[in-house]
Order: sequence, then C-alpha cells, then structure tokens
Amino acid sequence: MPFRLGEQAFIDLMVRLSRGSGPRPVVGIGDDAAILALPRTSQLLVTTDLLTEGVHFRSRWTPAYLLGRKAMAVNLSDIAAMGGLPHSAVVSIGWPRATPAAYAGGVARGLAAMAREHGVAIVGGDTCAAERMFLNVTLLGLIEPGREVRRDGARPGDGIYVTGRLGASGAGLRWLARRPRKAGGGSPARSGGAARSLRAAVSAAIRAHLDPTPRTAFGRALGAAGLATAMIDLSDGLSQDLPRLCRASRAGAVVLASALPIHPAATTLLGPPGDLEAALSGGEDYELLLTVRPDCEPLLAHLARRLRTPITRIGQILARRDGIRILTREGRYAPLPRGGFEHFPRRPRPARSRIGP
Amino acid sequence: MPFRLGEQAFIDLMVRLSRGSGPRPVVGIGDDAAILALPRTSQLLVTTDLLTEGVHFRSRWTPAYLLGRKAMAVNLSDIAAMGGLPHSAVVSIGWPRATPAAYAGGVARGLAAMAREHGVAIVGGDTCAAERMFLNVTLLGLIEPGREVRRDGARPGDGIYVTGRLGASGAGLRWLARRPRKAGGGSPARSGGAARSLRAAVSAAIRAHLDPTPRTAFGRALGAAGLATAMIDLSDGLSQDLPRLCRASRAGAVVLASALPIHPAATTLLGPPGDLEAALSGGEDYELLLTVRPDCEPLLAHLARRLRTPITRIGQILARRDGIRILTREGRYAPLPRGGFEHFPRRPRPARSRIGP
Repeated sequence: MPFRLGEQAFIDLMVRLSRGSGPRPVVGIGDDAAILALPRTSQLLVTTDLLTEGVHFRSRWTPAYLLGRKAMAVNLSDIAAMGGLPHSAVVSIGWPRATPAAYAGGVARGLAAMAREHGVAIVGGDTCAAERMFLNVTLLGLIEPGREVRRDGARPGDGIYVTGRLGASGAGLRWLARRPRKAGGGSPARSGGAARSLRAAVSAAIRAHLDPTPRTAFGRALGAAGLATAMIDLSDGLSQDLPRLCRASRAGAVVLASALPIHPAATTLLGPPGDLEAALSGGEDYELLLTVRPDCEPLLAHLARRLRTPITRIGQILARRDGIRILTREGRYAPLPRGGFEHFPRRPRPARSRIGP
Repeated sequence: MPFRLGEQAFIDLMVRLSRGSGPRPVVGIGDDAAILALPRTSQLLVTTDLLTEGVHFRSRWTPAYLLGRKAMAVNLSDIAAMGGLPHSAVVSIGWPRATPAAYAGGVARGLAAMAREHGVAIVGGDTCAAERMFLNVTLLGLIEPGREVRRDGARPGDGIYVTGRLGASGAGLRWLARRPRKAGGGSPARSGGAARSLRAAVSAAIRAHLDPTPRTAFGRALGAAGLATAMIDLSDGLSQDLPRLCRASRAGAVVLASALPIHPAATTLLGPPGDLEAALSGGEDYELLLTVRPDCEPLLAHLARRLRTPITRIGQILARRDGIRILTREGRYAPLPRGGFEHFPRRPRPARSRIGP
C-alpha cells in the first residue's frame, strides 16, 4: 500500500489535528513561514531532535502513533531540562514511498496528541520522500531571562537527583530487539505468578521505551522556582549525561550505585548486574538529572511531592579533581563506566548499540 | 574513508565556524536548548526546509560546500518571502556512515558561510547516522507586527512581478542529470564561440541550481516598506507557486509568456519551448514572486533599482472566476500548465521528477 496521503493531504491532516492546541500563532501552517507573537518578558528556547529509522527506532516494532508521540516527547524533555515552557513546534518528516497512509496518519496523530498534552502548537513543517523514514522536530519554548537551568551551574556539595526510575527504556529496547541477555534468570516460558510478573515487566519496559513521558511540569517548576543549580535530561544515559553536566560545571561527582532508582522492570528482565548497566547506560529514560544546593534540598523534596514527581538523591557533586566515580554496591569506588550511545563510534561497537538513543 | 569526524567533532567544528555570525545567543550550542533574546517589538518567523539525498540532491554531483549553502539558502528564501529578517537557525543532519570527514566538513563550512552572509547565528542542531544523507534547517526570523507579506493579499488589478530570471536552475538540474533534451540545437562538441557560450551557459545553469542566492535584502525591504500585497518564493516553479498565491488570495491571474524573464542559459541549453517549460516548472529558482497595487508600481521599480534587484512585471491579478491563465507567445490564452514537483505524486511521473525541488 503506497503512501497515498500525498504531501498536501498530510499537511491538511496535521492542520486539522493541531487545531486549538497550544498558543495560537498569528500565521500557522500554509504560508512561507509561521508567525508567532511571543510574550515580551520571555526569552526564546530552541531545541531540535531527530529520530531515524534503523538508528533511533525500527518501524517494524514501533506503532506509528507512539513514534509520533516520541518524536515530540524527546524535544519536550530538552525544554523541560532548561526549566522552560514549551510553546510551538515545526516537524520535518522523510517518508519512504511505500509508507501506508494509515502509518503516516498514525504518526500525525501521535505528534498532535503529545503536542496537545503539553500545550504546544504545531505551526509548520516539511515532508518529502526518503528511502528510510526520519522525523525531525524543532521545538520552541519560553523562559524568563535568568531563569534558565543550564548544565554549568553545579558546585561541589550540591546533591545530585534524578526524577522517576531508570533502566526500563534500555530493558524495553533489548526486549524488542529480541536479544534479552538474561530474563530474570529464567526462560520467558515460566507459568503462574512468575509469568504474570514477567509479562508486566515486559509491558512496562516496552512502554517506557516506546512512549516516554517528558517531565515538562516538573522541569518548568524548577526553572520558575530557581531551585536547581544545573540540569540535563537523561537521553544517552547517566554514564554519558552526568559527565556532560560535570564537564560544563567543571566539577566531579560521586554516584551511589545502591541509591540508583532502578526500574523494577529492568531488574525483572535483566537481573543484576544488567539492570544497573541499563540504568547507567541504557539511555532514553528522558528523566531529569539535576543538582541542588544542600540548603535547598528540603524545598526540592516539597516541590516534588506537590507535583507528584518521584525524585531520588543519587549522589553528590565533588571538586573536579575528584573525577566522576561510582560507589559500587560492594563499597568500592570505581570510575563511572563510559557507555550510552554515540552515533559515530570511532571503533566498532557491539551490535545492540546500532539501535538506541 | 568513514565519517571519522564523529558527532561531537562535527558539533565542535560547527561552533567554531559559526563564531560571531548573526545575533549572539544568550546560550548557544552545547546545552539542552539554545536561548535567544529577541527584540520586544518583533514577532517571530519560523520556517523549516528539508533536503534529502536522491530527492533534492545527489551527493555525486553536489559539492559538500554548496550543499551546506543551499540547505541554509532555501530557508532564507522563505523568510525573505515573508518580508522578514533572518535571525537564528538550528540544523539537523543524517550522515551515512561512509561519509568522508572532508565532505562533512564541507557541508559545515557551506552552512556557516551562507548563515554568515545573511546575518544568521547557528545556535543548535542534531546529527545522527542515516542510510541516506539529509539536512534539515529550521530558520527563525523577525518581523514587525503587521509588516509580514502573506500569500493572501493579492487583489484583482495588482501587478505580478518576479525577481531575477527563471529557468536556469531547472536547466542546470537537467544538465547535471545528463539528460539534456536539447543543447542549443547542437551537440556539446561545437568549437569556437558557440562552444564558449555553451560552456558559459552550462556553468551558469549549474551554479543557479547548486548555489541559489536567496533574495534576503529585497524581501526584507518589501516587508519594511509594506509595498507588496502578497509574496511567495519560487521553490516549486511558477506553475505551482502562482496558483498557491492565487488560491490563498481567492484570485485569478494572467501571465504573459513573452514577458517572462527566461534565463539565457536555459534558452542556450534547452532551446524553445524547453526554456519556457523550465521557467514555468523547472523549480528551485528561489526568486520572489510578488504582487503590487498599481499605484505602488513606480515605487517598487524605484526600490528595485536602489537594491540593484532585477524585477520583471510578468502579469496581473484577475478575479477568481477568470482562473489562472497564460497568454502564449502565439497570442492565445491557455490554462497555466500544472507542473513543478510533488514528492508523492498520485500517478507515476517522468523519471526526472525524482530529482527536483
């Protein structure tokens, strides 16, 4: 079934689905450029993120609706990590000519739904034929001058926190790729309660991978409250994203392995130490990693309760010379293992890393 | 030679090349999102345009530097067509793993050079591996409220103008694809003056196709002066873009074939009527198509002289019921032939349309 929608029909569908979502543009889809009237007191946040078939997703196991949602979600996560308020987006999509119209429509519905849930207007885009599918979203957001939470403000003594739980997305990806290294120590053919809990874990992990929820409200609250000294979203995994924050802040850090909020689905599916590995470098959890001055930690706990956002203190910022270390469950200090995903590795990497964040 | 630059190295190169270009961002490349401080009196323009290998370009015949320039230029053309001032851009690129580092570097230099020439800051982006190369640029611009030139303001009696000359890009594409239908009536192996003029035409046409110059200054002046009633940039060709302007304006139009500023290179390479066909539907000229109230036409001529921008009056806006027609050189009225490029045609199209705007 070819992509019968056509370029104009896809645009028309996008316009219809996006009606009334987010701040109303002065001029929306349909002219050479969209026009936005922005509040005079805000500065503009700009972020762009790309999902490519075969690199970030496999359309074989990715429902169209969830793919559309995720393409928007990963950008929302970036705006959240700056403490900003998402505003408007443009979307570029390359479609293989054989794309079924239903798949294209599903992607449009997913994009529109995630945008609507987070108050975003889709104001433009571009589509074209491509051999392999890709989606690029550019998301604009608002931030009051000086309220942005950068990566470079962490200071020795600050507590290191993450939202939510880690490792489920990585475990879900591994399950989808049908290369589970260790399924809770047993085969998936177990019966009774064990089978039920395995099924629940598989379902939770796949959901975490395919349909991540960006921490828009909590990130925004941290920006507005000026509570975090530094923040980054966990797209590539703690083992890559914490060093990024530390490099920008010219600081070191220690992470307590025993404190990491490992998602129980990761433990069920991968067992130790695979679950810890997934939590450190599985990537694509899209949780927030932030640092907070010690005297602000009670306030942070209060805010998190108010917004019903689970947070966990996983370590502490140190001086730069102390490096970035992990205190293992066995009580030894070790360098934080480098991991996560780089798209152009200098040396060949294991096969699974061809699919990932 | 594999893409040895790596993701971070490419970003570092982009940062280095973009230094001091365009308005300085509050936060540029290197955090979760860029932060821009915009003037309070302006509204924001947003446009995004995609170039895909095999659809919009062939890397085989597209020098990397020119590809980078063009990816930025096509977006600048959209901002010009709104009457706006370009401001900042983000860039997403999918690289095949086999991309030579020199090619990636060339693309970066081209993007940075075109951005610098038009006062644009590159403030962010995303890159990843892809099977076929693509570049997506999202360009932001500024426009004073009410000064934007939309597509929908043309009224019967308005003069229709284009900047520059048409058809060279289409002729250049045909030459590059090595399917010249008619080379000035002779073979390329002519000698003496004819050979020189053929070589000059080939070179001009290829340059027009690979390295278009967006009409940034003239478009901006039209916006600031409030001179044009409607405007669109010629990306898909007059035969598609004029109907778009007319549909938005609920108007008809007549175009005089004899008035069309056909690029002499198109005539040399394609001869009549191929040159007219290229001017109407070759696409990718990235000239401006605009309409002007009759009493403002002298002012337009003055402005064009001041900005050294060649303009030509090619027809007139009519009532909607008059349709969109062309007065042929033979003095007959005919419907404007539909042509240009659509990426997802409903029916099979001739082979050349697989490459085009």
